Amino acid sequence: MYGAIEAGGTKFVCAVSDDSLNILECVSIPTTKPSETMKEVFAFFDKHPVDAIGIGSFGPIDINKNSKTYGYVTNTPKLAWKDYNFVGEMKKRYQVPIAWTTDVNAAAYGELRKGAAVGKDSCVYLTAGTGVGGGGVVNGQLLEGFGHPEMGHILVRQHPEDTYKGNCPSHGNCLEGLAAGPAIGDRMGKRAQHLAEDDPYWKIQAFYLAQAIVNYTLILSPEKIIFGGGVMKQKQLFPLIRESFKEQMNDYVPVPDLEDYIVPCALEDKAGVTGCLLLAEKELNK
Amino acid sequence: MYGAIEAGGTKFVCAVSDDSLNILECVSIPTTKPSETMKEVFAFFDKHPVDAIGIGSFGPIDINKNSKTYGYVTNTPKLAWKDYNFVGEMKKRYQVPIAWTTDVNAAAYGELRKGAAVGKDSCVYLTAGTGVGGGGVVNGQLLEGFGHPEMGHILVRQHPEDTYKGNCPSHGNCLEGLAAGPAIGDRMGKRAQHLAEDDPYWKIQAFYLAQAIVNYTLILSPEKIIFGGGVMKQKQLFPLIRESFKEQMNDYVPVPDLEDYIVPCALEDKAGVTGCLLLAEKELNK
Repeated sequence: MYGAIEAGGTKFVCAVSDDSLNILECVSIPTTKPSETMKEVFAFFDKHPVDAIGIGSFGPIDINKNSKTYGYVTNTPKLAWKDYNFVGEMKKRYQVPIAWTTDVNAAAYGELRKGAAVGKDSCVYLTAGTGVGGGGVVNGQLLEGFGHPEMGHILVRQHPEDTYKGNCPSHGNCLEGLAAGPAIGDRMGKRAQHLAEDDPYWKIQAFYLAQAIVNYTLILSPEKIIFGGGVMKQKQLFPLIRESFKEQMNDYVPVPDLEDYIVPCALEDKAGVTGCLLLAEKELNK
Repeated sequence: MYGAIEAGGTKFVCAVSDDSLNILECVSIPTTKPSETMKEVFAFFDKHPVDAIGIGSFGPIDINKNSKTYGYVTNTPKLAWKDYNFVGEMKKRYQVPIAWTTDVNAAAYGELRKGAAVGKDSCVYLTAGTGVGGGGVVNGQLLEGFGHPEMGHILVRQHPEDTYKGNCPSHGNCLEGLAAGPAIGDRMGKRAQHLAEDDPYWKIQAFYLAQAIVNYTLILSPEKIIFGGGVMKQKQLFPLIRESFKEQMNDYVPVPDLEDYIVPCALEDKAGVTGCLLLAEKELNK
Protein backbone atom coordinates (compact mmCIF):
# COMPACT_ATOMS: atom_id res chain seq x y z
CA MET A 1 0.00 0.00 0.00
CA TYR A 2 1.29 3.45 -0.97
CA GLY A 3 0.58 6.82 0.58
CA ALA A 4 0.49 10.28 -1.00
CA ILE A 5 0.39 13.81 0.36
CA GLU A 6 -0.19 16.62 -2.08
CA ALA A 7 0.53 19.51 0.23
CA GLY A 8 -0.94 22.60 -1.39
CA GLY A 9 -1.21 26.10 -0.06
CA THR A 10 -4.99 25.87 0.35
CA LYS A 11 -5.50 22.18 1.05
CA PHE A 12 -3.62 18.96 1.66
CA VAL A 13 -4.85 15.98 -0.30
CA CYS A 14 -3.91 12.67 1.31
CA ALA A 15 -4.49 9.36 -0.42
CA VAL A 16 -3.64 5.71 -0.16
CA SER A 17 -3.53 3.20 -2.98
CA ASP A 18 -3.12 -0.51 -3.47
CA ASP A 19 0.10 -1.85 -4.97
CA SER A 20 -1.27 -1.26 -8.48
CA LEU A 21 -1.75 2.42 -7.58
CA ASN A 22 -5.53 2.33 -7.53
CA ILE A 23 -6.63 5.00 -5.08
CA LEU A 24 -8.49 3.39 -2.15
CA GLU A 25 -9.19 6.44 -0.04
CA CYS A 26 -8.57 10.14 -0.45
CA VAL A 27 -9.20 13.03 1.94
CA SER A 28 -8.84 16.77 1.72
CA ILE A 29 -7.58 18.76 4.71
CA PRO A 30 -7.44 22.56 4.92
CA THR A 31 -3.92 24.01 5.08
CA THR A 32 -3.89 26.07 8.26
CA LYS A 33 -0.90 25.55 10.54
CA PRO A 34 1.24 22.45 11.09
CA SER A 35 -0.20 21.61 14.52
CA GLU A 36 -3.71 21.46 13.06
CA THR A 37 -3.18 20.24 9.51
CA MET A 38 -0.62 17.58 10.39
CA LYS A 39 -2.84 16.24 13.17
CA GLU A 40 -5.35 15.27 10.52
CA VAL A 41 -2.63 13.97 8.19
CA PHE A 42 -1.39 11.70 10.98
CA ALA A 43 -4.93 10.57 11.79
CA PHE A 44 -5.32 9.52 8.15
CA PHE A 45 -2.06 7.60 7.86
CA ASP A 46 -2.37 6.06 11.33
CA LYS A 47 -5.33 4.15 9.89
CA HIS A 48 -3.44 2.96 6.79
CA PRO A 49 -0.27 0.87 7.05
CA VAL A 50 1.52 2.23 3.96
CA ASP A 51 4.85 0.86 2.74
CA ALA A 52 6.10 4.18 1.42
CA ILE A 53 4.86 7.76 1.14
CA GLY A 54 5.33 10.34 -1.61
CA ILE A 55 5.03 14.01 -0.67
CA GLY A 56 4.64 16.84 -3.17
CA SER A 57 4.70 20.09 -1.24
CA PHE A 58 4.15 23.77 -1.86
CA GLY A 59 7.49 25.54 -1.75
CA PRO A 60 10.06 26.64 -1.44
CA ILE A 61 11.31 23.44 0.15
CA ASP A 62 14.74 21.95 0.73
CA ILE A 63 15.26 18.90 -1.48
CA ASN A 64 19.04 18.84 -1.26
CA LYS A 65 19.95 15.54 0.41
CA ASN A 66 23.30 16.97 1.55
CA SER A 67 21.65 19.84 3.36
CA LYS A 68 21.00 19.97 7.11
CA THR A 69 17.49 21.20 6.40
CA TYR A 70 16.61 18.51 3.82
CA GLY A 71 12.89 17.83 4.06
CA TYR A 72 12.00 21.27 5.45
CA VAL A 73 9.60 23.82 4.08
CA THR A 74 11.88 26.86 3.91
CA ASN A 75 11.21 30.58 3.41
CA THR A 76 7.54 30.33 2.47
CA PRO A 77 5.26 33.32 2.86
CA LYS A 78 2.94 30.92 4.79
CA LEU A 79 4.70 31.81 8.01
CA ALA A 80 3.27 29.00 10.14
CA TRP A 81 5.05 26.53 7.85
CA LYS A 82 8.38 28.32 7.57
CA ASP A 83 11.19 25.97 8.67
CA TYR A 84 8.75 23.12 9.29
CA ASN A 85 10.60 19.79 9.15
CA PHE A 86 7.98 18.00 7.09
CA VAL A 87 9.91 14.86 6.17
CA GLY A 88 11.46 14.65 9.64
CA GLU A 89 8.08 14.76 11.37
CA MET A 90 6.68 12.14 9.01
CA LYS A 91 9.71 9.87 9.50
CA LYS A 92 9.40 10.12 13.26
CA ARG A 93 5.91 8.69 13.07
CA TYR A 94 6.19 6.31 10.09
CA GLN A 95 9.35 4.27 9.54
CA VAL A 96 8.89 3.95 5.78
CA PRO A 97 10.69 5.37 2.74
CA ILE A 98 9.53 8.88 1.92
CA ALA A 99 9.88 10.62 -1.44
CA TRP A 100 9.97 14.42 -1.24
CA THR A 101 9.58 16.98 -4.00
CA THR A 102 7.45 19.96 -4.97
CA ASP A 103 3.73 19.71 -5.71
CA VAL A 104 4.39 20.70 -9.35
CA ASN A 105 7.23 18.21 -9.82
CA ALA A 106 4.90 15.52 -8.47
CA ALA A 107 2.17 16.62 -10.89
CA ALA A 108 4.65 16.57 -13.80
CA TYR A 109 5.65 13.02 -12.84
CA GLY A 110 2.02 11.95 -12.50
CA GLU A 111 1.17 13.36 -15.94
CA LEU A 112 4.25 11.71 -17.48
CA ARG A 113 3.46 8.26 -16.17
CA LYS A 114 -0.34 8.26 -16.15
CA GLY A 115 -1.62 11.41 -17.85
CA ALA A 116 -0.98 13.68 -20.82
CA ALA A 117 2.65 12.64 -21.35
CA VAL A 118 2.38 8.85 -21.16
CA GLY A 119 5.14 7.22 -23.20
CA LYS A 120 7.38 10.29 -23.03
CA ASP A 121 10.61 10.80 -21.10
CA SER A 122 10.20 14.50 -20.48
CA CYS A 123 7.57 17.13 -19.84
CA VAL A 124 6.92 20.45 -18.15
CA TYR A 125 3.88 20.93 -15.93
CA LEU A 126 2.93 24.57 -15.44
CA THR A 127 0.16 25.67 -13.15
CA ALA A 128 -1.38 29.13 -13.26
CA GLY A 129 -3.68 29.81 -10.35
CA THR A 130 -3.09 31.66 -7.09
CA GLY A 131 0.55 31.50 -8.16
CA VAL A 132 2.45 30.32 -11.20
CA GLY A 133 4.61 27.25 -10.64
CA GLY A 134 6.28 24.69 -12.79
CA GLY A 135 7.82 21.28 -12.47
CA GLY A 136 9.43 18.97 -14.93
CA VAL A 137 10.76 15.59 -15.85
CA VAL A 138 13.97 15.17 -17.87
CA ASN A 139 15.18 11.76 -19.10
CA GLY A 140 12.46 10.15 -16.99
CA GLN A 141 13.67 11.75 -13.75
CA LEU A 142 12.39 14.68 -11.72
CA LEU A 143 13.92 17.99 -12.70
CA GLU A 144 16.05 18.81 -9.67
CA GLY A 145 19.53 20.15 -9.08
CA PHE A 146 20.89 22.32 -6.31
CA GLY A 147 17.25 22.90 -5.46
CA HIS A 148 13.93 22.63 -7.26
CA PRO A 149 12.61 24.64 -10.19
CA GLU A 150 10.83 27.89 -9.42
CA MET A 151 9.99 28.47 -13.05
CA GLY A 152 6.95 30.61 -12.29
CA HIS A 153 9.32 33.41 -11.36
CA ILE A 154 11.28 33.73 -14.60
CA LEU A 155 11.81 37.25 -15.85
CA VAL A 156 9.64 38.03 -18.86
CA ARG A 157 9.16 40.88 -21.29
CA GLN A 158 6.18 43.10 -20.67
CA HIS A 159 3.42 43.03 -23.29
CA PRO A 160 3.53 46.40 -25.10
CA GLU A 161 -0.14 47.11 -24.27
CA ASP A 162 0.09 46.04 -20.64
CA THR A 163 0.86 48.79 -18.14
CA TYR A 164 0.38 46.65 -15.03
CA LYS A 165 3.50 46.79 -12.84
CA GLY A 166 3.29 43.27 -11.47
CA ASN A 167 2.70 42.15 -7.89
CA CYS A 168 5.52 39.71 -7.08
CA PRO A 169 7.06 40.85 -3.78
CA SER A 170 10.48 39.67 -4.99
CA HIS A 171 10.52 40.57 -8.67
CA GLY A 172 7.53 42.80 -9.42
CA ASN A 173 6.82 41.90 -13.03
CA CYS A 174 8.17 38.35 -13.27
CA LEU A 175 5.86 35.73 -14.82
CA GLU A 176 3.95 35.10 -11.58
CA GLY A 177 3.80 38.83 -10.86
CA LEU A 178 2.08 39.40 -14.20
CA ALA A 179 0.12 36.24 -14.92
CA ALA A 180 -1.07 34.57 -11.69
CA GLY A 181 -4.74 34.85 -10.74
CA PRO A 182 -4.22 37.65 -8.18
CA ALA A 183 -2.28 39.71 -10.76
CA ILE A 184 -5.17 39.37 -13.20
CA GLY A 185 -7.64 40.40 -10.49
CA ASP A 186 -5.53 43.35 -9.41
CA ARG A 187 -5.03 44.56 -12.98
CA MET A 188 -8.60 44.08 -14.23
CA GLY A 189 -10.51 44.98 -11.06
CA LYS A 190 -12.29 41.64 -11.09
CA ARG A 191 -11.39 38.01 -10.75
CA ALA A 192 -10.20 36.08 -13.79
CA GLN A 193 -13.28 33.84 -13.78
CA HIS A 194 -15.54 36.91 -14.09
CA LEU A 195 -13.86 38.21 -17.25
CA ALA A 196 -15.71 37.51 -20.48
CA GLU A 197 -14.36 34.67 -22.56
CA ASP A 198 -13.60 37.12 -25.37
CA ASP A 199 -12.13 39.83 -23.15
CA PRO A 200 -9.11 41.29 -24.99
CA TYR A 201 -7.08 40.71 -21.83
CA TRP A 202 -6.80 36.99 -22.57
CA LYS A 203 -4.43 37.74 -25.45
CA ILE A 204 -2.11 39.46 -23.00
CA GLN A 205 -2.33 36.53 -20.60
CA ALA A 206 -1.59 34.14 -23.47
CA PHE A 207 1.42 36.26 -24.48
CA TYR A 208 3.03 35.83 -21.04
CA LEU A 209 2.35 32.11 -20.78
CA ALA A 210 3.53 31.56 -24.36
CA GLN A 211 6.70 33.56 -23.73
CA ALA A 212 7.44 31.42 -20.68
CA ILE A 213 7.00 28.18 -22.55
CA VAL A 214 9.08 29.43 -25.48
CA ASN A 215 11.89 29.83 -22.97
CA TYR A 216 11.20 26.47 -21.30
CA THR A 217 11.26 24.89 -24.76
CA LEU A 218 14.57 26.53 -25.68
CA ILE A 219 16.12 25.45 -22.36
CA LEU A 220 14.56 22.03 -21.72
CA SER A 221 13.18 20.83 -25.03
CA PRO A 222 10.43 18.86 -23.27
CA GLU A 223 8.22 16.48 -25.22
CA LYS A 224 5.02 17.97 -23.73
CA ILE A 225 3.95 21.14 -22.01
CA ILE A 226 1.02 20.52 -19.70
CA PHE A 227 -1.04 23.25 -18.08
CA GLY A 228 -2.98 23.04 -14.84
CA GLY A 229 -4.39 25.46 -12.28
CA GLY A 230 -7.50 27.60 -11.93
CA VAL A 231 -6.63 30.20 -14.55
CA MET A 232 -6.21 27.45 -17.14
CA LYS A 233 -9.85 26.46 -16.73
CA GLN A 234 -10.32 29.31 -19.25
CA LYS A 235 -10.11 26.96 -22.22
CA GLN A 236 -10.06 29.85 -24.71
CA LEU A 237 -6.48 30.42 -23.56
CA PHE A 238 -5.13 27.31 -25.27
CA PRO A 239 -5.52 28.43 -28.91
CA LEU A 240 -4.29 31.91 -27.95
CA ILE A 241 -1.20 30.47 -26.25
CA ARG A 242 -0.42 28.25 -29.24
CA GLU A 243 -0.74 31.21 -31.60
CA SER A 244 1.48 33.44 -29.51
CA PHE A 245 4.00 30.62 -29.02
CA LYS A 246 4.26 30.21 -32.79
CA GLU A 247 4.79 33.92 -33.25
CA GLN A 248 7.40 34.29 -30.50
CA MET A 249 9.30 31.10 -31.35
CA ASN A 250 9.23 32.03 -35.05
CA ASP A 251 9.94 28.42 -36.10
CA TYR A 252 13.41 28.56 -34.62
CA VAL A 253 13.43 25.01 -33.29
CA PRO A 254 11.28 22.12 -34.42
CA VAL A 255 8.57 21.29 -31.92
CA PRO A 256 5.78 18.71 -32.02
CA ASP A 257 2.47 19.78 -33.49
CA LEU A 258 1.25 22.52 -31.16
CA GLU A 259 -2.13 20.88 -30.57
CA ASP A 260 -0.24 17.92 -29.12
CA TYR A 261 2.53 19.92 -27.51
CA ILE A 262 0.65 22.51 -25.46
CA VAL A 263 -2.13 20.70 -23.64
CA PRO A 264 -4.29 20.78 -20.52
CA CYS A 265 -3.47 18.27 -17.80
CA ALA A 266 -5.21 14.94 -18.24
CA LEU A 267 -5.40 13.90 -14.58
CA GLU A 268 -6.93 17.22 -13.54
CA ASP A 269 -7.01 17.50 -9.74
CA LYS A 270 -5.46 14.03 -9.36
CA ALA A 271 -2.16 14.86 -11.09
CA GLY A 272 -0.32 15.68 -7.88
CA VAL A 273 -1.63 12.76 -5.83
CA THR A 274 -0.97 10.34 -8.68
CA GLY A 275 2.59 11.62 -8.97
CA CYS A 276 3.09 11.24 -5.22
CA LEU A 277 1.90 7.62 -5.30
CA LEU A 278 4.24 6.87 -8.20
CA LEU A 279 7.12 8.51 -6.36
CA ALA A 280 6.32 6.47 -3.24
CA GLU A 281 6.46 3.30 -5.33
CA LYS A 282 9.75 4.40 -6.89
CA GLU A 283 11.23 5.25 -3.49
CA LEU A 284 10.32 1.83 -2.12
CA ASN A 285 11.86 0.01 -5.08
CA LYS A 286 15.08 1.92 -5.39
CA MET B 1 40.98 3.86 -27.61
CA TYR B 2 38.30 6.57 -27.80
CA GLY B 3 37.69 9.16 -30.48
CA ALA B 4 36.23 12.65 -30.23
CA ILE B 5 35.00 15.20 -32.74
CA GLU B 6 34.15 18.65 -31.48
CA ALA B 7 32.51 19.99 -34.62
CA GLY B 8 32.46 23.76 -34.28
CA GLY B 9 31.37 26.37 -36.76
CA THR B 10 34.94 27.57 -37.34
CA LYS B 11 36.96 24.44 -36.75
CA PHE B 12 36.62 20.75 -36.05
CA VAL B 13 38.83 19.41 -33.27
CA CYS B 14 39.45 15.68 -33.56
CA ALA B 15 41.17 13.72 -30.81
CA VAL B 16 41.92 10.20 -29.71
CA SER B 17 42.63 9.04 -26.19
CA ASP B 18 43.74 5.91 -24.41
CA ASP B 19 41.24 3.99 -22.31
CA SER B 20 41.96 6.26 -19.34
CA LEU B 21 40.95 9.23 -21.50
CA ASN B 22 44.45 10.72 -21.79
CA ILE B 23 44.53 12.55 -25.10
CA LEU B 24 47.12 10.94 -27.41
CA GLU B 25 46.69 13.07 -30.49
CA CYS B 26 44.59 16.07 -31.35
CA VAL B 27 44.16 17.94 -34.66
CA SER B 28 42.27 21.02 -35.72
CA ILE B 29 40.56 21.13 -39.12
CA PRO B 30 38.90 24.21 -40.64
CA THR B 31 35.11 23.95 -41.02
CA THR B 32 34.50 24.57 -44.71
CA LYS B 33 32.17 22.10 -46.45
CA PRO B 34 31.54 18.41 -45.69
CA SER B 35 33.47 17.12 -48.71
CA GLU B 36 36.62 18.93 -47.55
CA THR B 37 36.34 18.90 -43.79
CA MET B 38 35.17 15.31 -43.49
CA LYS B 39 37.97 14.12 -45.79
CA GLU B 40 40.42 15.26 -43.14
CA VAL B 41 38.30 13.86 -40.33
CA PHE B 42 38.31 10.47 -42.06
CA ALA B 43 42.09 10.71 -42.68
CA PHE B 44 42.57 11.24 -38.95
CA PHE B 45 40.36 8.39 -37.75
CA ASP B 46 41.57 6.01 -40.49
CA LYS B 47 44.92 6.12 -38.67
CA HIS B 48 43.44 5.42 -35.24
CA PRO B 49 41.44 2.26 -34.50
CA VAL B 50 39.00 3.72 -31.98
CA ASP B 51 36.43 1.64 -30.11
CA ALA B 52 33.83 4.39 -29.94
CA ILE B 53 33.46 8.00 -31.03
CA GLY B 54 31.75 10.94 -29.33
CA ILE B 55 30.60 13.82 -31.51
CA GLY B 56 29.60 17.23 -30.21
CA SER B 57 28.35 19.28 -33.12
CA PHE B 58 27.29 22.82 -33.88
CA GLY B 59 23.54 22.92 -34.34
CA PRO B 60 20.79 22.68 -34.82
CA ILE B 61 21.10 18.92 -35.10
CA ASP B 62 18.64 16.05 -34.86
CA ILE B 63 19.24 14.03 -31.69
CA ASN B 64 15.84 12.36 -31.59
CA LYS B 65 16.49 8.63 -31.91
CA ASN B 66 12.96 8.05 -33.23
CA SER B 67 13.43 10.51 -36.06
CA LYS B 68 14.27 9.61 -39.65
CA THR B 69 16.90 12.32 -39.68
CA TYR B 70 18.59 11.30 -36.41
CA GLY B 71 22.27 12.17 -36.68
CA TYR B 72 21.78 14.96 -39.23
CA VAL B 73 22.81 18.57 -39.04
CA THR B 74 19.48 20.27 -39.76
CA ASN B 75 18.52 23.85 -40.65
CA THR B 76 21.87 25.46 -39.94
CA PRO B 77 22.77 28.80 -41.54
CA LYS B 78 26.02 27.06 -42.67
CA LEU B 79 24.32 25.96 -45.85
CA ALA B 80 26.94 23.43 -46.96
CA TRP B 81 26.16 21.42 -43.83
CA LYS B 82 22.37 21.66 -43.95
CA ASP B 83 20.87 18.14 -43.95
CA TYR B 84 24.30 16.51 -43.71
CA ASN B 85 23.98 12.99 -42.29
CA PHE B 86 26.92 13.30 -39.92
CA VAL B 87 26.37 10.16 -37.83
CA GLY B 88 25.33 8.15 -40.88
CA GLU B 89 28.51 9.03 -42.79
CA MET B 90 30.66 8.22 -39.77
CA LYS B 91 28.87 4.90 -39.20
CA LYS B 92 29.36 3.92 -42.84
CA ARG B 93 33.11 4.22 -42.40
CA TYR B 94 33.57 3.14 -38.77
CA GLN B 95 31.50 0.31 -37.32
CA VAL B 96 31.75 1.53 -33.74
CA PRO B 97 29.28 3.03 -31.25
CA ILE B 98 28.82 6.75 -31.81
CA ALA B 99 27.52 9.25 -29.25
CA TRP B 100 25.90 12.34 -30.76
CA THR B 101 24.98 15.61 -29.09
CA THR B 102 25.62 19.34 -29.39
CA ASP B 103 29.04 20.92 -28.89
CA VAL B 104 27.75 22.74 -25.80
CA ASN B 105 26.15 19.65 -24.27
CA ALA B 106 29.47 17.86 -24.76
CA ALA B 107 31.31 20.75 -23.10
CA ALA B 108 28.85 20.71 -20.18
CA TYR B 109 29.47 16.98 -19.75
CA GLY B 110 33.24 17.45 -19.96
CA GLU B 111 33.17 20.18 -17.32
CA LEU B 112 30.92 18.07 -15.06
CA ARG B 113 33.14 15.02 -15.12
CA LYS B 114 36.61 16.58 -15.44
CA GLY B 115 36.34 20.35 -15.07
CA ALA B 116 34.61 23.04 -13.05
CA ALA B 117 31.67 20.86 -11.91
CA VAL B 118 33.49 17.73 -10.77
CA GLY B 119 31.50 15.94 -8.07
CA LYS B 120 28.21 17.56 -9.14
CA ASP B 121 25.22 15.98 -10.87
CA SER B 122 24.13 19.05 -12.78
CA CYS B 123 25.49 22.11 -14.51
CA VAL B 124 24.85 24.57 -17.29
CA TYR B 125 27.60 25.45 -19.78
CA LEU B 126 27.01 28.73 -21.59
CA THR B 127 29.27 29.99 -24.34
CA ALA B 128 29.25 33.57 -25.57
CA GLY B 129 31.31 34.05 -28.70
CA THR B 130 30.25 34.23 -32.35
CA GLY B 131 26.92 32.98 -31.01
CA VAL B 132 25.44 32.28 -27.62
CA GLY B 133 24.77 28.63 -26.88
CA GLY B 134 24.15 26.53 -23.85
CA GLY B 135 24.14 22.91 -22.82
CA GLY B 136 23.44 21.19 -19.59
CA VAL B 137 23.54 18.11 -17.45
CA VAL B 138 20.62 17.14 -15.17
CA ASN B 139 20.82 14.22 -12.73
CA GLY B 140 24.13 13.22 -14.36
CA GLN B 141 22.62 12.95 -17.83
CA LEU B 142 22.75 15.22 -20.87
CA LEU B 143 19.92 17.73 -20.99
CA GLU B 144 17.89 16.48 -23.94
CA GLY B 145 14.23 16.00 -24.69
CA PHE B 146 12.31 16.30 -27.92
CA GLY B 147 15.46 17.96 -29.21
CA HIS B 148 18.45 19.73 -27.69
CA PRO B 149 18.60 22.99 -25.77
CA GLU B 150 18.96 26.20 -27.77
CA MET B 151 19.18 28.30 -24.67
CA GLY B 152 21.15 31.07 -26.35
CA HIS B 153 17.92 32.14 -28.03
CA ILE B 154 15.75 32.74 -24.97
CA LEU B 155 13.73 35.94 -25.00
CA VAL B 156 15.16 38.53 -22.62
CA ARG B 157 14.25 41.99 -21.41
CA GLN B 158 16.11 44.85 -22.99
CA HIS B 159 18.43 46.84 -20.73
CA PRO B 160 16.83 50.29 -20.24
CA GLU B 161 19.94 52.09 -21.54
CA ASP B 162 20.44 49.82 -24.54
CA THR B 163 18.81 50.96 -27.77
CA TYR B 164 20.37 48.25 -29.96
CA LYS B 165 17.65 46.33 -31.82
CA GLY B 166 19.39 42.95 -31.85
CA ASN B 167 20.65 40.99 -34.84
CA CYS B 168 19.16 37.51 -34.53
CA PRO B 169 17.54 36.66 -37.89
CA SER B 170 14.81 34.70 -36.09
CA HIS B 171 14.12 36.74 -32.95
CA GLY B 172 15.87 40.10 -33.27
CA ASN B 173 16.59 40.90 -29.65
CA CYS B 174 16.80 37.45 -28.07
CA LEU B 175 19.84 36.72 -25.88
CA GLU B 176 22.10 35.83 -28.83
CA GLY B 177 20.78 38.77 -30.83
CA LEU B 178 21.83 41.14 -28.03
CA ALA B 179 24.86 39.53 -26.41
CA ALA B 180 26.87 37.48 -28.92
CA GLY B 181 30.17 38.87 -30.20
CA PRO B 182 28.76 40.12 -33.52
CA ALA B 183 25.96 41.97 -31.70
CA ILE B 184 28.54 43.72 -29.54
CA GLY B 185 30.59 44.65 -32.61
CA ASP B 186 27.54 45.88 -34.49
CA ARG B 187 26.31 47.95 -31.55
CA MET B 188 29.66 49.44 -30.49
CA GLY B 189 31.29 49.87 -33.91
CA LYS B 190 34.25 47.78 -32.85
CA ARG B 191 34.95 44.24 -31.83
CA ALA B 192 34.41 43.21 -28.21
CA GLN B 193 38.12 42.57 -27.66
CA HIS B 194 38.90 46.18 -28.62
CA LEU B 195 36.59 47.70 -26.02
CA ALA B 196 38.31 49.02 -22.89
CA GLU B 197 38.08 46.79 -19.87
CA ASP B 198 36.17 49.52 -18.03
CA ASP B 199 33.90 50.43 -20.94
CA PRO B 200 30.42 51.09 -19.51
CA TYR B 201 29.05 48.66 -22.10
CA TRP B 202 30.24 45.68 -20.08
CA LYS B 203 27.55 46.35 -17.47
CA ILE B 204 24.94 45.99 -20.18
CA GLN B 205 26.52 42.77 -21.41
CA ALA B 206 26.60 41.47 -17.83
CA PHE B 207 22.92 42.39 -17.40
CA TYR B 208 21.90 40.15 -20.33
CA LEU B 209 24.04 37.20 -19.33
CA ALA B 210 22.92 37.51 -15.70
CA GLN B 211 19.28 37.68 -16.73
CA ALA B 212 19.71 34.51 -18.78
CA ILE B 213 21.29 32.61 -15.92
CA VAL B 214 18.66 33.84 -13.46
CA ASN B 215 16.14 32.15 -15.74
CA TYR B 216 18.26 29.01 -16.16
CA THR B 217 18.59 28.87 -12.37
CA LEU B 218 14.83 29.23 -11.85
CA ILE B 219 14.12 26.52 -14.43
CA LEU B 220 16.98 24.04 -13.95
CA SER B 221 18.47 24.77 -10.53
CA PRO B 222 21.92 23.62 -11.71
CA GLU B 223 24.74 23.18 -9.21
CA LYS B 224 27.16 25.22 -11.36
CA ILE B 225 26.97 27.73 -14.18
CA ILE B 226 30.08 27.60 -16.34
CA PHE B 227 30.96 30.17 -18.97
CA GLY B 228 33.08 29.64 -22.06
CA GLY B 229 33.58 31.35 -25.42
CA GLY B 230 35.55 34.29 -26.74
CA VAL B 231 33.49 37.07 -25.15
CA MET B 232 34.03 35.48 -21.72
CA LYS B 233 37.78 36.00 -22.03
CA GLN B 234 36.84 39.47 -20.73
CA LYS B 235 37.38 38.46 -17.13
CA GLN B 236 35.97 41.74 -15.81
CA LEU B 237 32.55 40.36 -16.82
CA PHE B 238 32.46 37.79 -14.02
CA PRO B 239 32.08 40.17 -11.05
CA LEU B 240 29.62 42.26 -13.07
CA ILE B 241 27.53 39.18 -13.92
CA ARG B 242 27.49 38.05 -10.28
CA GLU B 243 26.40 41.51 -9.13
CA SER B 244 23.62 41.75 -11.71
CA PHE B 245 22.52 38.17 -10.98
CA LYS B 246 22.15 39.03 -7.30
CA GLU B 247 20.13 42.11 -8.14
CA GLN B 248 17.82 40.39 -10.64
CA MET B 249 17.32 37.24 -8.56
CA ASN B 250 16.71 39.33 -5.44
CA ASP B 251 17.47 36.38 -3.14
CA TYR B 252 14.36 34.55 -4.31
CA VAL B 253 15.90 31.08 -4.30
CA PRO B 254 18.95 29.93 -2.37
CA VAL B 255 21.95 29.46 -4.65
CA PRO B 256 25.52 28.46 -3.85
CA ASP B 257 27.99 31.24 -3.09
CA LEU B 258 28.14 33.21 -6.35
CA GLU B 259 31.96 33.01 -6.57
CA ASP B 260 31.57 29.23 -6.75
CA TYR B 261 28.35 29.22 -8.72
CA ILE B 262 29.15 31.44 -11.71
CA VAL B 263 32.56 30.42 -12.96
CA PRO B 264 34.74 30.27 -16.08
CA CYS B 265 35.23 26.86 -17.67
CA ALA B 266 38.13 24.92 -16.20
CA LEU B 267 39.03 22.84 -19.26
CA GLU B 268 39.15 25.90 -21.52
CA ASP B 269 39.42 24.85 -25.17
CA LYS B 270 39.45 21.16 -24.18
CA ALA B 271 35.96 21.12 -22.61
CA GLY B 272 34.22 19.93 -25.77
CA VAL B 273 36.75 17.29 -26.75
CA THR B 274 36.93 15.97 -23.19
CA GLY B 275 33.14 15.70 -23.10
CA CYS B 276 33.13 13.87 -26.44
CA LEU B 277 35.70 11.33 -25.19
CA LEU B 278 33.64 10.75 -22.03
CA LEU B 279 30.51 10.31 -24.12
CA ALA B 280 32.32 7.83 -26.37
CA GLU B 281 33.33 5.84 -23.31
CA LYS B 282 29.76 5.95 -21.97
CA GLU B 283 28.34 4.88 -25.34
CA LEU B 284 30.69 1.90 -25.49
CA ASN B 285 29.80 0.76 -21.97
CA LYS B 286 26.07 1.16 -22.12
